[in-house]
Amino acid sequence: MSLLNKTIDSISGQDETSRAQAKERLDQLIMPHWALGRLMDLALDLAGICGSVRPSVKRKTIIVMAGDHGITDAGVSLFPKEVTVEMVRGFVNGVAGINVLARQAGADVKVVDMGVAGDLSALSVNGDILDRKIAPGTNNFAEGPAMSRDQAIRALEAGISAAQELADSTDLFGTGDMGIGNTSSSSAIVATICQLPVADVVDRGTGLDDAQLKHKIKVLEKALALNNPDPADPIDVLSKVGGFEIAGIAGLVLGAAALKKPIIIDGFISTAGALLAGRLAPKSKEYMIAAHRSVEKGHVAALTDLGKEPLLDLQFRLGEGTGAAVAMNLIEGAVAILTEMATFNEAAVSEAN
Amino acid sequence: MSLLNKTIDSISGQDETSRAQAKERLDQLIMPHWALGRLMDLALDLAGICGSVRPSVKRKTIIVMAGDHGITDAGVSLFPKEVTVEMVRGFVNGVAGINVLARQAGADVKVVDMGVAGDLSALSVNGDILDRKIAPGTNNFAEGPAMSRDQAIRALEAGISAAQELADSTDLFGTGDMGIGNTSSSSAIVATICQLPVADVVDRGTGLDDAQLKHKIKVLEKALALNNPDPADPIDVLSKVGGFEIAGIAGLVLGAAALKKPIIIDGFISTAGALLAGRLAPKSKEYMIAAHRSVEKGHVAALTDLGKEPLLDLQFRLGEGTGAAVAMNLIEGAVAILTEMATFNEAAVSEAN
Repeated sequence: MSLLNKTIDSISGQDETSRAQAKERLDQLIMPHWALGRLMDLALDLAGICGSVRPSVKRKTIIVMAGDHGITDAGVSLFPKEVTVEMVRGFVNGVAGINVLARQAGADVKVVDMGVAGDLSALSVNGDILDRKIAPGTNNFAEGPAMSRDQAIRALEAGISAAQELADSTDLFGTGDMGIGNTSSSSAIVATICQLPVADVVDRGTGLDDAQLKHKIKVLEKALALNNPDPADPIDVLSKVGGFEIAGIAGLVLGAAALKKPIIIDGFISTAGALLAGRLAPKSKEYMIAAHRSVEKGHVAALTDLGKEPLLDLQFRLGEGTGAAVAMNLIEGAVAILTEMATFNEAAVSEAN
Repeated sequence: MSLLNKTIDSISGQDETSRAQAKERLDQLIMPHWALGRLMDLALDLAGICGSVRPSVKRKTIIVMAGDHGITDAGVSLFPKEVTVEMVRGFVNGVAGINVLARQAGADVKVVDMGVAGDLSALSVNGDILDRKIAPGTNNFAEGPAMSRDQAIRALEAGISAAQELADSTDLFGTGDMGIGNTSSSSAIVATICQLPVADVVDRGTGLDDAQLKHKIKVLEKALALNNPDPADPIDVLSKVGGFEIAGIAGLVLGAAALKKPIIIDGFISTAGALLAGRLAPKSKEYMIAAHRSVEKGHVAALTDLGKEPLLDLQFRLGEGTGAAVAMNLIEGAVAILTEMATFNEAAVSEAN
């Protein structure tokens, strides 16, 4: 059996016994019932995911999946394609948004070259870049499929293998992305999977003006009509309008779920990947934690489809894993509530009348 | 001149030069313009508050103002008054909600006894409890004023002096509260200051049912009619329907603003205190950062009056400073963005077309 199928088959749901044990303790902590709201919901999930009332989330890794997009030739982004490589250099040098927010959260940052249109070998020091390059960028899906079905499967498996490789040093995964043009690919995926009009899920990306946004919508409408991806077949969607880094994210989510590790889903791009993972293995959704609500309007549609309420709304629209990094502090807080607070009995505090 | 008047007179607004310098740098960081949204707005505020493009927020302290309320005799809370002392013991022992969330955020917790109805001297070790007790609990304001005008002023000044005492070891303040019955006092303050019907700002506190909530509203309506506090005179409001710990919070905010230090306002109780501080010294609002949106419905009215949009919405309704503790991670992230990210020039990244 292929790695992809084996992984999908091995994903089962959260551990209900640990969830129930965590619930029992949380119900008795010294405060009005459930007064730390969403962090307590999160604590339940973490117990269920890790199969323990003392889940560990100490070792945190943000995995920035990087890839380029042929669709940039159709003029859908403000930034030139070279920026993907330049930003990866920024990640390795520790000076980008994800680096500073990951440092604040005590998380490592790893870059996975899923399909950057440039040579990253000179940049890779200390194993900060994992080489899983499928091809130097996707094809322009305004003119035909972004990649072959075989490439899509290999990219998903590369994401799974990245999860497996990093699992030894990671309790808590966070997704991230880098790829000029990837809001276009994500919009096409979300429109297809959620069966929504393109115009409802496309937004300004890195900062398009009204005319440029109109152009982006037109390009994507034509591309979807041309490729006609099958909403019931996530690998078809991925190969026709996806991206290598988005496939990598989907694979990473599947890999984490199979390993029973929590994975924080960053913003719009990551959620497009998570949506594909959720279609390939519905139980994988039980391992996903939605970090934040992005400014990109397609994000809400994707989150709603996944049944996820994001933890934060900070008007981010950067990607890179920045929302996941900020959310890691909340995950740590949730675990601390479950494992470090006293119960009414333990602390001899009077209960409600 | 009194400490209160001297402090109020010394509060001036944010430093506009540092704000402008921070804006210039933030505009050039390697990402789409302002793509880290609210954390960048926050970075501007921190530069303006601290008067520096390299604001320091390393040393963080949550100050839990504690006091009891005579209004509990009117049956407005589920928990008995003894819980205030019991919870302070929990704070000193490090096992309450605020302790675990403050630890996660790397913050110290200090308790200030503003007016607990019990002897805390045996609990105070390592200077964890500052003694500023005005009286052992307020009077029942269902039957007359909660405290004298002189006590209200002394309580405000005790809060200012706590800020001054802790300023040497604190870059970033967070407010917190403990006091059974204090949602009743806070509701009365917010209803008066914002000139709203009591029923619009009262909620379930530690968990009242429908009948108990109805009773709480009736008690507060009668108490406000009896005391008739003057909305234009914050000290009159405080003395008639306030609490010692709420006065302490108001004083703490004034003290922090006078010292030009950022202060994170926790939930409903803290915001009632901040509202009074904002009426006493409108410029103090420029030093306040709203942590989160509490479940208590009066909180939104108070935040709106202050012109503050909270950073988080995690369905908290605990107080103690728990929301402020979680928000401290966001403050650190904002400073990291301002001080650690590279500009397009520094990192040689191509700009938008």
